[in-house]
Amino acid sequence: MGDCCEIEEGAYADSLLNLEWLRRSLVREEDSIIFSLIERSKYPINSRLYDQSAAAAPSLLHLFIKESEAVQAKAGRYTSPEENAFFPDSLPPLKHNPVLHPSGACININSKILNHYLNMLIPLIAAKGDDDRNYAATAASDLACLQALSRRIHYGKFVAEVKFRDSPQDYTPAILAKDKDGLMKLLTFESVEEAIKKRVEKKAMVFGQEVELQENGSYKVKPELVSQLYGEWVIPLTKFVQVEYLLRRLD
Amino acid sequence: MGDCCEIEEGAYADSLLNLEWLRRSLVREEDSIIFSLIERSKYPINSRLYDQSAAAAPSLLHLFIKESEAVQAKAGRYTSPEENAFFPDSLPPLKHNPVLHPSGACININSKILNHYLNMLIPLIAAKGDDDRNYAATAASDLACLQALSRRIHYGKFVAEVKFRDSPQDYTPAILAKDKDGLMKLLTFESVEEAIKKRVEKKAMVFGQEVELQENGSYKVKPELVSQLYGEWVIPLTKFVQVEYLLRRLD
Repeated sequence: MGDCCEIEEGAYADSLLNLEWLRRSLVREEDSIIFSLIERSKYPINSRLYDQSAAAAPSLLHLFIKESEAVQAKAGRYTSPEENAFFPDSLPPLKHNPVLHPSGACININSKILNHYLNMLIPLIAAKGDDDRNYAATAASDLACLQALSRRIHYGKFVAEVKFRDSPQDYTPAILAKDKDGLMKLLTFESVEEAIKKRVEKKAMVFGQEVELQENGSYKVKPELVSQLYGEWVIPLTKFVQVEYLLRRLD
Repeated sequence: MGDCCEIEEGAYADSLLNLEWLRRSLVREEDSIIFSLIERSKYPINSRLYDQSAAAAPSLLHLFIKESEAVQAKAGRYTSPEENAFFPDSLPPLKHNPVLHPSGACININSKILNHYLNMLIPLIAAKGDDDRNYAATAASDLACLQALSRRIHYGKFVAEVKFRDSPQDYTPAILAKDKDGLMKLLTFESVEEAIKKRVEKKAMVFGQEVELQENGSYKVKPELVSQLYGEWVIPLTKFVQVEYLLRRLD
């Protein structure tokens, strides 16, 4: 994390720190997350992709992500402050566009996201089984889910920056006291979180339905699962990122 | 195309040549195509990605696809007879699982698909403009669209094989006479095509809507555009693949 960022003024800093733009991006990212989960649910678990049993060997998925990130880095993916790599140490060092406070800008909790995705989420969205001709398509689909989730969760940094700029006096005492619980309380609006959970559940119903010219009522990914994903994981992790960011905001 | 396939019996040949499985795959692929188009529509055209003006230089997108295909090939993507690379000459030669008749199995019209996608489709689904921090995300999104379209269109090979096996007597005379128009007529069922166009338009309305807790009526990608895409391009190209396949079916 430390000193990977350089100070220079970015042309699009204004939009990234505009609350309405952020709100729209977060809402739009819900669609991307749900599309990608639905696409992942096309394939069975394919657990050989995730197998790390060979001593110290990375899994096929790890290799796939690392190599895909190298390709995407060449096209400039990680020069965008909205993007965080899963294996940043394998990539050339970056000059970030310093939209954010430098010590918080490089917060990257992708290893948490990857672990949770592999251990908790895949078993819930993918059917049991193995379908070896689709390993690459499955891995590509995992990467799309992970990138969408990562973008959503790391938007927390921008949200925290905007909130801090908006009312530094509310946050400064808790930051100075390193009071994580206090910060978490300042960042928590239960009615907003309830509305998000309802909205993503509705989106999962709409996007995951089997659309036929005649209606039926089955879903590709359980809508209540997506609501639970947001409630138990995406929202808490986004707030975790916000707290971590704010704790460094006065460095 | 020629001799890239070897004969050996595949374990899943049965499912790939089962008409009901194929029908379900084609219907499911519609969702993938529409999700990927909606995702591409998040970004502006970003025409610098497609620029080939430097003498003989490939575009950034070409490089991106080539390198991504190399990564996906290592994970086995192109060992699946459902998958066709956009730059197969850059990949190690393959032993295809010979579900299909060998001379037709290697039909690959991806250069047509890529051209049409770049010249016709992108200007219709992406807003004008440039958004340079999202080039890599845009390219990844292009690749997802292209792969979904390619899979859908090349399913034509399996459909043609099933139809031929079902009633060789109907197809053999036209094949021997190299009668493309006659084959096209045998493969055309207007009422089925109309139903597909209606269904994809409906899917684009359902998947592309802005889902809010209160309803509104805007779409991320114009539903009638998706119907037109299928009517003028996806269905004709799938039939083109079928005709090409059948013409080689008796080699």
